[in-house]
Amino acid sequence: MAVCSKCGNPKIIIKRQSSGQRLCKDCFIEDIQKKVIKTIKKEKLIEKGDKVLVALSGGKDSVCLLDILNTLKERRIIDLCAVTIDEGIANYRDDGVKIAINNAKNVNIPHKIVSFKESFGISLDEIMKDNDKRGACTYCGVFRRWIINRAAREFKATKIATGHNLDDETQAIMMNYLEGNINNLKTIGPKTEPKSKLFTSKIKPLREIPEKEIGLYVIAKDLEVHFAGCPYVETSFRGEISEIMKKLTSKHPNIMYSTLRGFDKIKIAIKNQESSKQELKECEICGEPSSGRLCRVCMFLEEIRQIKDNKKTLNNNNINN
Amino acid sequence: MAVCSKCGNPKIIIKRQSSGQRLCKDCFIEDIQKKVIKTIKKEKLIEKGDKVLVALSGGKDSVCLLDILNTLKERRIIDLCAVTIDEGIANYRDDGVKIAINNAKNVNIPHKIVSFKESFGISLDEIMKDNDKRGACTYCGVFRRWIINRAAREFKATKIATGHNLDDETQAIMMNYLEGNINNLKTIGPKTEPKSKLFTSKIKPLREIPEKEIGLYVIAKDLEVHFAGCPYVETSFRGEISEIMKKLTSKHPNIMYSTLRGFDKIKIAIKNQESSKQELKECEICGEPSSGRLCRVCMFLEEIRQIKDNKKTLNNNNINN
Repeated sequence: MAVCSKCGNPKIIIKRQSSGQRLCKDCFIEDIQKKVIKTIKKEKLIEKGDKVLVALSGGKDSVCLLDILNTLKERRIIDLCAVTIDEGIANYRDDGVKIAINNAKNVNIPHKIVSFKESFGISLDEIMKDNDKRGACTYCGVFRRWIINRAAREFKATKIATGHNLDDETQAIMMNYLEGNINNLKTIGPKTEPKSKLFTSKIKPLREIPEKEIGLYVIAKDLEVHFAGCPYVETSFRGEISEIMKKLTSKHPNIMYSTLRGFDKIKIAIKNQESSKQELKECEICGEPSSGRLCRVCMFLEEIRQIKDNKKTLNNNNINN
Repeated sequence: MAVCSKCGNPKIIIKRQSSGQRLCKDCFIEDIQKKVIKTIKKEKLIEKGDKVLVALSGGKDSVCLLDILNTLKERRIIDLCAVTIDEGIANYRDDGVKIAINNAKNVNIPHKIVSFKESFGISLDEIMKDNDKRGACTYCGVFRRWIINRAAREFKATKIATGHNLDDETQAIMMNYLEGNINNLKTIGPKTEPKSKLFTSKIKPLREIPEKEIGLYVIAKDLEVHFAGCPYVETSFRGEISEIMKKLTSKHPNIMYSTLRGFDKIKIAIKNQESSKQELKECEICGEPSSGRLCRVCMFLEEIRQIKDNKKTLNNNNINN
């Protein structure tokens, strides 16, 4: 009979195709926690005394991340806080925010909820109403990063931790290999050094854990998680690559690991290559670091305003005619 | 009506999804030839006075390569010769050899046909009979390279040209990205510098031409080509990656080009990284350059001998029992 490869318990919850290893619930939980701590040590993601801000959406990745980082907080190695962003997406985000609040309460840490509406005067639903200039993910990504950077300063956090998992990381790597985008490849990795004193170092402690195992971890630990998918999800290039990697993994269980290991070696070589290192200025409107006169958030907000104005003029003309 | 983007001829034979360009037969042929010459110049693959040995299987890639390199011979820029390898594959190779002979005759160049049987005392069919230790492609690749290297010395060739196309090259790149095999990635590229004085520089003038367009070129030029597939073809990892790249290309027509461009930039960075540069010795049996006491060909031949001997003993025992 198949038993746990570590303790012999017959009640196994996972058989890893990549190694043949079988694990029971307790050994699986311990194994994931150890792996994440190993990544943190190997990549020097966290130092004793760090104040880590978790970008907590309430989804499985960020909830798993918070749970594991909390073990470091309990051992008084780090201080922990969290920020949750309310993009303003009807019938979706409210549940996620509630679940994020519960998770932050459970580990008893300071937690901010910041909405697009209060930060930018407009929700994502309002942005996307009759707007086909850009996909929702483009606005959302830019706006979320802006909020997280500010929250890190307000919390005086020394690190921002995000829930990127092995699938996310290898997808990003493959997309940029295929697009031949070396400058993007240079930015992928376990840790991003801030390009401005106003920014905070970003870390990805879950980058070596497959998405499936994160899903299993939150179930095994009975954590409350928001499992709904975002209604704006795009059938994107990332989606295609995700499908390809899943299919390859079913036949070659180690392929995401080997892709990551290979990339990490390539990264060492390419990061030393010259690239146009721009000095960041301060955005003339919001004061956040920016490569141009205005940051992307303020450019997008200006663009959205113009789209709305044009629509209003058009509607008025239609009424008058 | 759709006409040739270059000359206005209404009889177009290709519409490129990657650029929207439409070409008639003559403009297409000229375009491919110019592109190959451009690669040769950009990558400094050939110098005036080079004697180029074409590895001529008779398949579309090597026939196209020979045809284009012959334009340089006609302009007295290079000298040309060819080698065809008869692996000894029943109902397959004989046709290829005949077609190779015809093509070499057409351009009036010295041409050698070398068989596995005369070089190693055994044909591929004989090797593979009851041999399930390795796939045919492993033996074939190692044995072919040995023959080509020797032929280059016998011809006093200064370059060995192979028919690797854009599909071949991006497949190799993607396979090694996914396997995380950096040492292999370092060896991929338009030109391989020889690691021993006994070896000759290898070049890939067709590496920027998609497989489909090479197929179209040989048809457009009415070249005689061996279109049959090798009976030993393996449903390999390369096959999976080939499928993936074809599917991605149908939706993103430029993806193989961008993969190649990106890789070429990465290559510059990684080739300078330290790697265990072994001094090559001479194989104690055949005298070819080798990293160990014996080269791979002589090790494989020894292995094959043992497999056959074991089988003979087994058969004798069965008869005696």
